[in-house]
Amino acid sequence: MVNSPNHPCIKDGWFREINDKSFPGQAFTLVVDSILYQARSEFQDILIFSNKVYGTVLVLDGIIQCTEFDEFAYQEMITHIAMFAHSNPKRVLIIGGGDGGVLREVAKHKGVEEITMVEIDSSVIELSRKFLPTLSDGAFDDERLDLKLCDGFKFLEDIAGAQKKFDVIITDSSDPEGPAEAFFQERYFQLLNNALNPDGIVIMQSSENIWLNLDYLRDLKNTAKRVFPNTEYCYTMVPTYTSGQLGLIVCSNNDSIPLIAPQRSLSGQEQEQLRYYNPQIHSSAFVLPTWADKVINK
Amino acid sequence: MVNSPNHPCIKDGWFREINDKSFPGQAFTLVVDSILYQARSEFQDILIFSNKVYGTVLVLDGIIQCTEFDEFAYQEMITHIAMFAHSNPKRVLIIGGGDGGVLREVAKHKGVEEITMVEIDSSVIELSRKFLPTLSDGAFDDERLDLKLCDGFKFLEDIAGAQKKFDVIITDSSDPEGPAEAFFQERYFQLLNNALNPDGIVIMQSSENIWLNLDYLRDLKNTAKRVFPNTEYCYTMVPTYTSGQLGLIVCSNNDSIPLIAPQRSLSGQEQEQLRYYNPQIHSSAFVLPTWADKVINK
Repeated sequence: MVNSPNHPCIKDGWFREINDKSFPGQAFTLVVDSILYQARSEFQDILIFSNKVYGTVLVLDGIIQCTEFDEFAYQEMITHIAMFAHSNPKRVLIIGGGDGGVLREVAKHKGVEEITMVEIDSSVIELSRKFLPTLSDGAFDDERLDLKLCDGFKFLEDIAGAQKKFDVIITDSSDPEGPAEAFFQERYFQLLNNALNPDGIVIMQSSENIWLNLDYLRDLKNTAKRVFPNTEYCYTMVPTYTSGQLGLIVCSNNDSIPLIAPQRSLSGQEQEQLRYYNPQIHSSAFVLPTWADKVINK
Repeated sequence: MVNSPNHPCIKDGWFREINDKSFPGQAFTLVVDSILYQARSEFQDILIFSNKVYGTVLVLDGIIQCTEFDEFAYQEMITHIAMFAHSNPKRVLIIGGGDGGVLREVAKHKGVEEITMVEIDSSVIELSRKFLPTLSDGAFDDERLDLKLCDGFKFLEDIAGAQKKFDVIITDSSDPEGPAEAFFQERYFQLLNNALNPDGIVIMQSSENIWLNLDYLRDLKNTAKRVFPNTEYCYTMVPTYTSGQLGLIVCSNNDSIPLIAPQRSLSGQEQEQLRYYNPQIHSSAFVLPTWADKVINK
């Protein structure tokens, strides 16, 4: 039995994702086989441990960010829904995503010429490369990558007047409590809009799902919609995230782009590289149960 | 803080769904606000408690069966996928389903003339009517109901030669460990087949999901397929079930019935009565991530 008197999330050998504000009354828990790393970075508390089923688990500020076993469900969906909703993405911006998983998925698109990644916490990158090497799978060495270690919000402010814009912007942040707080407000969507080509696609993790906080999702979608006329809600299914699913907000300024379906067909090679995403699940990710559909989409 | 020295699943005020055989290394946990009932029936351990988010929670043999908050996701999908995959169901059989939720959903179909329900454990019915009255919502008083308190497997053996068959049979059992063990074997599918009209539809909960036990699901689907040429896997998303989702196996002897879409349109009144099911989610419930699709459907 692993005990860690120094980490409040571990008790009697179990990691317990207890958060009274975000998901009161419930907690997902995982057996801790061994603690691989535990420290506070400049920005957040970082815990990495191993579990016999889920493999290596990355936890930031007490919230599970990814596990080796199910990470592809999140990385593939947040990446490829946006990438295939665009007809020919060449310049891609990743905000956050320090574990390298989204970078790995973006790098699979051969047509992409430049990948800019902006991560505030260099220790997340270093630790993920060390303890979760399959997340980035070598993509940090991709020649197309321009890695910037700074705040994503400030980066967008700094490039506001730049000529070169992005085709796809993926916000792979942690939840609003902590360093990612600014990523869930209208000003952020305006900055994204400034940095986007006319037919560009934006996608972000919503930090919530329909079971946890439906009204928040409606409000977040409406906030995005004030900036992007074409805004939709979809989700991916990840067993180690609360309720087993996580919402994504996907937006474009071009109202004629149907975000709910891929805009180009996948080659056999492209499909072979993917474990979760396919054109059918792209579309079904936008289908909601009636009660949630009424609140979010009506 | 609620403590129950008599119940091994409750510790320090938390109900912990720990099961080393079915889902090792992980456990979903819920705060116990108060214990409403706790005893062993003739067939299984029954625990009922309340949680501030999920309301009243029914637990059989340590496994969460339903909570007031999210039960409709399961009851509606296991019922209406089968009911709407049939063009005009008049005689319906429910095996298990003692909490009354499936019965409530079947009773919403005005065209149904006879509902036979076979539940082995009368105490589940009595306790659900007392502590979870919204589950059955008065449906136990429906004039079309013929309630039989006996083993579902034995019931099917007894009616094997009967002239009157069923249009839809729904197996709403607990998991294979315990009294429901026989419901997951080929002989059971044969008994279902004997009891079914030519265009009849069978649906059952699989007890697993794609993250937990993909090979088991493939085998269970293949077992069903040896009896029913038209067999499909689909799922529903329930936050209090392990991995946040539960697989369903749906079958028909008629290969020309497309199980993946409703065979009749819902009236406005029908759609108004439903919180989760709609024609779009019927179809998307059959869409799987690529890696799972390859194992289960290829």
